[in-house]
Amino acid sequence: MRYSAIEDGYMVYVEKNERIMDTLTEFCLGMDVQNAQLSGIGAVKGIELGAYDVASKEYIRQHFEDTWELVSYQGNVTLKDGRPFIHAHVTISDHSMRTRGGHLFEATVSAVGEFFLRRVDSSVHRKLDEDIGLPTWCTTDHKE
Amino acid sequence: MRYSAIEDGYMVYVEKNERIMDTLTEFCLGMDVQNAQLSGIGAVKGIELGAYDVASKEYIRQHFEDTWELVSYQGNVTLKDGRPFIHAHVTISDHSMRTRGGHLFEATVSAVGEFFLRRVDSSVHRKLDEDIGLPTWCTTDHKE
Amino acid sequence: MRYSAIEDGYMVYVEKNERIMDTLTEFCLGMDVQNAQLSGIGAVKGIELGAYDVASKEYIRQHFEDTWELVSYQGNVTLKDGRPFIHAHVTISDHSMRTRGGHLFEATVSAVGEFFLRRVDSSVHRKLDEDIGLPTWCTTDHKE
Repeated sequence: MRYSAIEDGYMVYVEKNERIMDTLTEFCLGMDVQNAQLSGIGAVKGIELGAYDVASKEYIRQHFEDTWELVSYQGNVTLKDGRPFIHAHVTISDHSMRTRGGHLFEATVSAVGEFFLRRVDSSVHRKLDEDIGLPTWCTTDHKE
Repeated sequence: MRYSAIEDGYMVYVEKNERIMDTLTEFCLGMDVQNAQLSGIGAVKGIELGAYDVASKEYIRQHFEDTWELVSYQGNVTLKDGRPFIHAHVTISDHSMRTRGGHLFEATVSAVGEFFLRRVDSSVHRKLDEDIGLPTWCTTDHKE
Repeated sequence: MRYSAIEDGYMVYVEKNERIMDTLTEFCLGMDVQNAQLSGIGAVKGIELGAYDVASKEYIRQHFEDTWELVSYQGNVTLKDGRPFIHAHVTISDHSMRTRGGHLFEATVSAVGEFFLRRVDSSVHRKLDEDIGLPTWCTTDHKE
């Protein structure tokens, strides 16, 4: 992976055959990024998507082996068990421009991976919400 | 809803069973947010999408009752009749990772709603454009 | 096109019948924008999408003549041959809320085009990567 530091974060280039989630998480660890906003585009393969089933509280998973355009990647970095954790959702498109989307477990760059990571000066962390079945944002303020 | 203030805005967590557009608009009102950039991900239900028909100058509407992943939410806050107004477009995906998208009228959080609201130091407001049939951005500068 | 300057960039309104990629590229040239993050929503027509074929190293192209909602536009500005170059991916939706997506070659605004351009204080440029067949990001740092 390659990167350039910018005023409030980094432009991150995930290289061919690198795994996006692993690479970006390792980068956050190395750079001590605790909270951040992530977005990006590219072309990926070996994509593992998920859809959360609120009844069973489990993710339904689907695998896409071939190359798809990464048309939208939006995510956030928060602390989970004291370590940076990335939650990201994506839209992907195939050679007929048809799209699929969901929660991103992992995907490997097949051509390019161009990301913006914008640091956020906060300390939002995740804690398991029993009702929802997922670790959710713990913030500083609450409003009815 | 819960939130944490960040340098240039807020990380906003819209809670289960809260309506996204209502909640974020109320938040902007309470925090005196006049111009902002919004983005986010989550899982939603009771989704009302629209597609603008440029000929009839009316929105075609479609309702999605079940839970879908909110794979992309992009929007902006501007002033309309002196009040903060959110214009947002979304992509959603179902349990087969199939996607739908459009203008977002409203959606209710079914699991989580994780948003970044970045304040913008501007005063872009909306005024009805008769030709288009929609209130469009009034900006300070114009270029041919 | 119309715009308002903001602290770290511009809110850019691409007007009806203006071409998005041409207009935004010209704007970057005029404003001396070398690196930036772009995002936006709107309604577009005459859309030329692409999917990169990693084997043949060529884009497969598809044209969409009618109006579609621009539900997601994500891109970046970097220097290519010394000039600002926009790389953008989009998701579009039709009147049935069905979506398509891909690399955006060009699209013309059919109703509105609302964009955020955030300047980035960097000098990432593109150089042809023979292996990939595309001009890719040259950054300042590299990590294994």
